[in-house]
Amino acid sequence: MKAVVYRRARTLDIEERPEEEPRPGELGIAVAYTGICGTDLHIYHGDMDARVGAEAVIGHEMSGRIAKIGSGVVGWSVGQPVTVMPTRSCGKCPACHRGHSHVCHNMQFLGIDSPGAMQSLWNVPADLVLALPAELSLEHAALIEPTAVAVHDVRRASVGTDDHVVVIGGGPVGVLIAAVARHRGARVVLVEPDRFRRQVAAELGVEAFDPAVTDVVALVNGRTMGAGADIAFEVSGSAAGVTTAVDVLTTRGRLVMVAIHPQPRPVNLHRFFWRELELLGARLYQRDDMTEAIRLIATGAVAADRLISRVGPIDTVSEAFTALEAGGSVMKVLIDWQEHTR
Amino acid sequence: MKAVVYRRARTLDIEERPEEEPRPGELGIAVAYTGICGTDLHIYHGDMDARVGAEAVIGHEMSGRIAKIGSGVVGWSVGQPVTVMPTRSCGKCPACHRGHSHVCHNMQFLGIDSPGAMQSLWNVPADLVLALPAELSLEHAALIEPTAVAVHDVRRASVGTDDHVVVIGGGPVGVLIAAVARHRGARVVLVEPDRFRRQVAAELGVEAFDPAVTDVVALVNGRTMGAGADIAFEVSGSAAGVTTAVDVLTTRGRLVMVAIHPQPRPVNLHRFFWRELELLGARLYQRDDMTEAIRLIATGAVAADRLISRVGPIDTVSEAFTALEAGGSVMKVLIDWQEHTR
Repeated sequence: MKAVVYRRARTLDIEERPEEEPRPGELGIAVAYTGICGTDLHIYHGDMDARVGAEAVIGHEMSGRIAKIGSGVVGWSVGQPVTVMPTRSCGKCPACHRGHSHVCHNMQFLGIDSPGAMQSLWNVPADLVLALPAELSLEHAALIEPTAVAVHDVRRASVGTDDHVVVIGGGPVGVLIAAVARHRGARVVLVEPDRFRRQVAAELGVEAFDPAVTDVVALVNGRTMGAGADIAFEVSGSAAGVTTAVDVLTTRGRLVMVAIHPQPRPVNLHRFFWRELELLGARLYQRDDMTEAIRLIATGAVAADRLISRVGPIDTVSEAFTALEAGGSVMKVLIDWQEHTR
Repeated sequence: MKAVVYRRARTLDIEERPEEEPRPGELGIAVAYTGICGTDLHIYHGDMDARVGAEAVIGHEMSGRIAKIGSGVVGWSVGQPVTVMPTRSCGKCPACHRGHSHVCHNMQFLGIDSPGAMQSLWNVPADLVLALPAELSLEHAALIEPTAVAVHDVRRASVGTDDHVVVIGGGPVGVLIAAVARHRGARVVLVEPDRFRRQVAAELGVEAFDPAVTDVVALVNGRTMGAGADIAFEVSGSAAGVTTAVDVLTTRGRLVMVAIHPQPRPVNLHRFFWRELELLGARLYQRDDMTEAIRLIATGAVAADRLISRVGPIDTVSEAFTALEAGGSVMKVLIDWQEHTR
């Protein structure tokens, strides 16, 4: 079988490896498509070497079909379309004890802490596998995991009908948040400097503005009789994004922190006090978020195909990473594994 | 009648003024005690001249007795003990429209935007007057308004039984928050560098630590098997206070922003993301918070007398402001108006 192996910073090798049988309790999945996430890019850049180690098979956004069934696993059949929830919680830490196992302190992340999806046969604990409806295209299904992030973020914000929502940052997760919030009936504005990404948002029915051209705070105030937005999602990771997100909110408005800000950011805490604003961190997803993401993509509520910029065979994987780090006219890039799994 | 008039920065004059009759809809209150709040100190420093103007009668923490009843006002009797909720909302702004009139965008604050309590007869719209139980000492009742702030903050945080709560900053509001949270059944730790203030907290049954001596994050982690605190109140207004408040929280912990931070502060947003923390701004109070504050002080659940450092006649008012700005061994200072109102 084939596997994409992270060797060292900026080096991915495609290797021929012997197929392993699924262990008891595992399912062997013939991988159909894998996506590339921001975390995969961090690994590719060498930023996570201490955690990932050498010789790592990475990847956690995927779709596929059951190929092998490990002993003791029931309720599955070969050929069944599936995706994987790539997180395993410990059940013992304070987060798990308090019912927040999705942000477990000892989280094992498949594709980071253990082998990931970029291999033609992926053996995965059966309790992390989710069945897909037959009518859902496996190409679209590769976007379930990032859509689950968006579902979680929107749920954390309690987005409601007619809420004014501002999403700052129009990468895949930002655009997905905008699409999910819009599906909830919210009035959504997306802020993104890149023209291509604004176009993708527009194709998903989301109004998108260039912050260099449009004063988003003035725009939202104008549309809300001076009140401001109910909810802002910070997905840009920029200091300017944080400032806009705080300034755009109405009294008791909610700012959901989705982006990773490695450095502390200056925050206008007086505005939080004065308007009784709320800031909510949001990370990963729970199983229900995965299930909802499957439903949203399967029903076309989230038009996954609009986010897929290109699909290539596995020998284009390094090229795909390079394209994503260069940015520009690219959103999601998928690798098609099917020539090696049929 | 006597009035304390703010003239200009650091200048308060005690003036003899003619008594005015309450207008229709107003009650005339013979003021018994007034307290001095942080906002009064800001006015005294000249920081709020643009809003307060010259010749202003300041003050909004008070107790007294009904002395005169304006036309059209029913249900009150002369001699009845009362306090005042010193905020008037506009009913028209976005905050009011959304049910958050206590943070009205056009708030009229008695003692800032209109004449305040530091006068022997204070005419106040009857709908802002709250009746006091007969058994409640008028001296203690002067602390109802700051206690309402604490009640609001604790309610905003949804403090529950056995929650681990950290209060950063042990001025009157910090100590009151600690006392109210403790009354709710929480396990409360207060962080305050001033020894006198820590003593006051201890007299109210609140454990208090000097941050120069005790690593509060380590302390709380030790008491929670590494989980961290459920709730932190930032009442210090310091950058270090913000950092400690973020670092001490458990997964999904809540940071309530009570203090005024005039400058943006560096905030570890990655921690918000990683632990799905929440930041909640909290300002002023609603009428229910005032009612609850009356109950807590009247029943002795909050031992108001422990917070009263001294009580003096009105010719000590400038001295009281000076003592408060110097800090040190002082918590609440009250002015006794009764020799002028009997």
